[in-house]
Amino acid sequence: MIWTDPTPTSALVVRRTKLSNALGDLPALLVAGSYRARNYPANRYPFRAESHFLYLTGAQLPGAALLLDGSRATLFVVPAASDDPLWHGESEGLGELRKRAGVDAVAPIEELPAALAGRAVATIPANDDTTAAWQSSLLGRTVRPRGASALEGPDSLLADALLGARLIHDEAAVAQIRRSCEATTAGHHAGARALRPGIREAVVRAAIEAEFIKCGMTTAYGSIVTTHGEVLHHERSDGMVAEGDLLLVDAGAENAEGWSSDVTRVYPASGRFSATQRALYDVVLAANRAAIAKVRPNVRYRDVHLEAGRTIVRGLVDLGILRGDVDGLVERGAYTIFFPHGVGHLLGLDVHDMEDLGDRAGYAPGRTRSPRFGDRYLRLDRDLAPGMAVTIEPGFYQVPAILRDDTLVGPFAKDLDRDALARFRDVRGIRLEDDVLCTHGEPEILTRAIPIDAAAVEAWMRA
Amino acid sequence: MIWTDPTPTSALVVRRTKLSNALGDLPALLVAGSYRARNYPANRYPFRAESHFLYLTGAQLPGAALLLDGSRATLFVVPAASDDPLWHGESEGLGELRKRAGVDAVAPIEELPAALAGRAVATIPANDDTTAAWQSSLLGRTVRPRGASALEGPDSLLADALLGARLIHDEAAVAQIRRSCEATTAGHHAGARALRPGIREAVVRAAIEAEFIKCGMTTAYGSIVTTHGEVLHHERSDGMVAEGDLLLVDAGAENAEGWSSDVTRVYPASGRFSATQRALYDVVLAANRAAIAKVRPNVRYRDVHLEAGRTIVRGLVDLGILRGDVDGLVERGAYTIFFPHGVGHLLGLDVHDMEDLGDRAGYAPGRTRSPRFGDRYLRLDRDLAPGMAVTIEPGFYQVPAILRDDTLVGPFAKDLDRDALARFRDVRGIRLEDDVLCTHGEPEILTRAIPIDAAAVEAWMRA
Repeated sequence: MIWTDPTPTSALVVRRTKLSNALGDLPALLVAGSYRARNYPANRYPFRAESHFLYLTGAQLPGAALLLDGSRATLFVVPAASDDPLWHGESEGLGELRKRAGVDAVAPIEELPAALAGRAVATIPANDDTTAAWQSSLLGRTVRPRGASALEGPDSLLADALLGARLIHDEAAVAQIRRSCEATTAGHHAGARALRPGIREAVVRAAIEAEFIKCGMTTAYGSIVTTHGEVLHHERSDGMVAEGDLLLVDAGAENAEGWSSDVTRVYPASGRFSATQRALYDVVLAANRAAIAKVRPNVRYRDVHLEAGRTIVRGLVDLGILRGDVDGLVERGAYTIFFPHGVGHLLGLDVHDMEDLGDRAGYAPGRTRSPRFGDRYLRLDRDLAPGMAVTIEPGFYQVPAILRDDTLVGPFAKDLDRDALARFRDVRGIRLEDDVLCTHGEPEILTRAIPIDAAAVEAWMRA
Repeated sequence: MIWTDPTPTSALVVRRTKLSNALGDLPALLVAGSYRARNYPANRYPFRAESHFLYLTGAQLPGAALLLDGSRATLFVVPAASDDPLWHGESEGLGELRKRAGVDAVAPIEELPAALAGRAVATIPANDDTTAAWQSSLLGRTVRPRGASALEGPDSLLADALLGARLIHDEAAVAQIRRSCEATTAGHHAGARALRPGIREAVVRAAIEAEFIKCGMTTAYGSIVTTHGEVLHHERSDGMVAEGDLLLVDAGAENAEGWSSDVTRVYPASGRFSATQRALYDVVLAANRAAIAKVRPNVRYRDVHLEAGRTIVRGLVDLGILRGDVDGLVERGAYTIFFPHGVGHLLGLDVHDMEDLGDRAGYAPGRTRSPRFGDRYLRLDRDLAPGMAVTIEPGFYQVPAILRDDTLVGPFAKDLDRDALARFRDVRGIRLEDDVLCTHGEPEILTRAIPIDAAAVEAWMRA
């Protein structure tokens, strides 16, 4: 039974202390966020606290806020309502919470305005309008959700301090991510075993997500379980699986404290890859391996992306789908018509870690997105460092909207052999994604327990 | 394989026509609502359209709006972005959508302001602040979410027209609810079979929710799967199940168009109820049966609630837990200390149907909530009519917060035999809930395929 121990209190204390040191005299308010109503006020989406709050407290506390003020940390919480023992059971006492979170004090949320009054306090906007409006009223200035990439002044300092801390995972963070990867492994295995021709995609999705629920986890993002792998974010799983189909499964678990995993595998519905499927699968696999091998300290992530692109071009030239000089094709971006997205992103408390901060998170200062189609979707371009966790997820897709778009394919008209490509029509989309920890030495593949070699995948489906 | 056919276009047309007739010249704007960001803007909770919008369109279309203007229905939709074919696949054409929804026109959302300009238009506030703010700006007046029970003027007329329509389910609605009940049946069966001592509650929850996902459905509300049935809305399933425990499972599926089901059963972890568990189970079962038998046209729902209370009192007197005259005990509300909630609620597109409209939905004009503890949680007090769907969910709970509260238990100090009660300490909470359709004759139990007799439940767990 996979179950996650809470982050040790000592680790939370260290994180807050480091952050406080980085902030100096600047107080900081980190909010947990609100429940979101679904179809009526009392029918709510499952609560998920803001990631910065989780990082510093480990606690999923709706409506709460953490005030860091010099060396002092106070957690402000919504007190239990008088009928809570009937509807929600006995609440954890404030003293227990103080001890578990290791903060200096726990106080009712009503005391927060007085603690802030008249002071300049940094904050990060919550992802929900209700909480952002509350932050505005607490701080006496406009705090806008989804405007995090344009943060200014003290908020900008706080964002940079959080980024500095969260980019490099501590031991406790890595332990949490490992647990999520274990649940993801169980999910993929159950899904692979459930797969057969004649079922709906939803049957596989159910098998996967059931494993997450068993582990007390949820999905870190909307699972993609589809025979239409060429649609990058295919959200529906209502299609029937036919003999000969490939099923693309992009599914990862998020544990109780919010730590994520993110894995893609491609499974043959019949249990065996066809020769053409296998050939393209091996091209993507080679790109996965080559890119992972580059995950080393001081390597620029854009170069990891380009390594994947280069490997794909080389493979497609070998298969006769592309013609010509590999270096020239890579230079001109020929891979983007078959691999039109970035090779990966940061991974942590968010599956795209800290994406609430916009490209401030993924792009080192002075670096910006490429204007080129495909490459512009690269979410990360930092120099790697030990303790960073990233995904590596190259792919090959036959996207009709690309292949019929002359502005995209035209530049490669002479390089692309459409007759050769037509022989691979039983491949719509393949993506092979692992979670990788940059270390001082060899990169550690956190998801190595999920088979990726084609023969091993076939064996796993039967096991 | 349980899969739900879409609501027939003809049924949608009839619903809109009836609503338009009720509104006369008053135009009405029904919004679908927005995606809610989870931990960053692109990581969103699964989209679920507003129920009024679903009722009239059957379509889960983020950001869309339906304008009813006399006999004319126009659906305004967010056009596909230029890179949608890459990320989300090819969109349904506007012509196809027009045909499927049976509306007079489909137009881009940009054209909505011009269609509304300067006119008095009724609306119902969406459940998310972002959409409500958009409604305010479209209509040039303040439209507040969660303020629906205080609707005024044209909005009040629209709310009443929707209520009139949605209270009495048409054939298409009943067909949808039946499908959700079928998935719920599959879920409870899988959960019951997965139950054994030594597992975590989450294992049972996973088995149940996997069945919903297989059917392309989701949970209609946060599942309650707990050995602590005495906590009415216990949201966690991280506890271990021990030999001799009862597991309370309150879980229901919601199908792709949003139609709900809502079922509670209680399963003995070891596969057999103890004698004391069985005795109290049978008391609650008798209350379930007696209340369901009252679901007939023109019966006031409060009387259904009281019938459940009366049956529970009678059973507890028979078991020696309460002493004295049944009528007198019922009159004084003795059941409320063991059954401190309402016997049920409306069921439809929302699991508490139309609760976004507040007690305007559940309470007939002129009726208000009882001030008495327990009874005050009754969500429904209308006269029943053929086509209404309700839940019937009596329970028995030993809630520490109640049993130690002298203001609640004091009035029954002489009636309550605490020694007798102590013999039933292996029962924390039992609730038995069915979904029931009021017809012209016998009530129809939509969830009758889920065994409820104790012996049948035991047999089902093995099957």
